[in-house]
Amino acid sequence: MSLIPESHRDLLRSKALAMLATVNAEGLPQVTPVWFDTEGDDIVFNTARGRMKDKNLQRHPHVALAIVDPANPYRYLQVRGVIADVSEKGANDVINRLAKKYIDKDVYPWGKPGEVRVTYRVRPEKVQVMG
Amino acid sequence: MSLIPESHRDLLRSKALAMLATVNAEGLPQVTPVWFDTEGDDIVFNTARGRMKDKNLQRHPHVALAIVDPANPYRYLQVRGVIADVSEKGANDVINRLAKKYIDKDVYPWGKPGEVRVTYRVRPEKVQVMG
Repeated sequence: MSLIPESHRDLLRSKALAMLATVNAEGLPQVTPVWFDTEGDDIVFNTARGRMKDKNLQRHPHVALAIVDPANPYRYLQVRGVIADVSEKGANDVINRLAKKYIDKDVYPWGKPGEVRVTYRVRPEKVQVMG
Repeated sequence: MSLIPESHRDLLRSKALAMLATVNAEGLPQVTPVWFDTEGDDIVFNTARGRMKDKNLQRHPHVALAIVDPANPYRYLQVRGVIADVSEKGANDVINRLAKKYIDKDVYPWGKPGEVRVTYRVRPEKVQVMG
C-alpha cells in the first residue's frame, strides 16, 4: 500500500519536477531538480553515469524528494526513501518516457554522445504532505 | 564579490521558495521549501527552534539550496554553502520581513504559541546556474 496519500497523488502525475536531495562523499547535501515518474509505489528518475547525483548515490543510497504543486508553492509532498534499484538496462527507454511526460517528445533530445543513462528507483520510507 | 551571477539574481528577489537540503543525525538527506531573503552576499532563512532543519543544522552546518524560477522550471540557481551565523536575536523581525516579501503581511501569521524563531545565515561557497 502506497505511503503517498490520495490527496497529493496528482503531483506524481503532474509536470512538477522533483527536487532531489542527496549526500556527497564528504557528507554534504546536494539538491537538484529531476524529472521523475512512478512505477507502482516507487519513484523513478534517470541520470547519466558520472553526474554528481550518480556518484553520490553510489556511496549514499538515500534520498529526499520534494515535489511542489506548480500551481501552489505551499502544497507539496516530501518523500524520504532508499534506492531500491539502479539499472542501465532500459534506461534509454525511461528517459524517453520522461521526455514524453515533461516536454512531449518521443525521444529525449538532450543526450550527449557517449553518455550512459541510468535509472534509479526510490522506495519511499517516509512521506509528509503540506497543503 | 557575490558568487551569484547577475543573470540569475532576479531569483533572489522573486517569490520563489528555496528548496533547502540538509543532512540529519543519521547522515540522511532532507529537503524542505523555505522562504529566504538575502543580506549582502548571504542567504538568510528562518525557522522555529526544534524543527527538523534546526536540529539537522546544529549538527551539520552545511546546506544546499535550489531556487527555481516560478515562470520556468528549467531556469534555476543552485547554491551550496555553510551556516555562517545562527541567531535568535532579531529573528521575529526576520520572519516578519519574509512574510512581507512572500505573502505581503506585516506580521507573520502562522507562528505558534511558545515558538522560538531562529535565523540562519548561509554563506555561499559554490554556485551553479541553469537556463
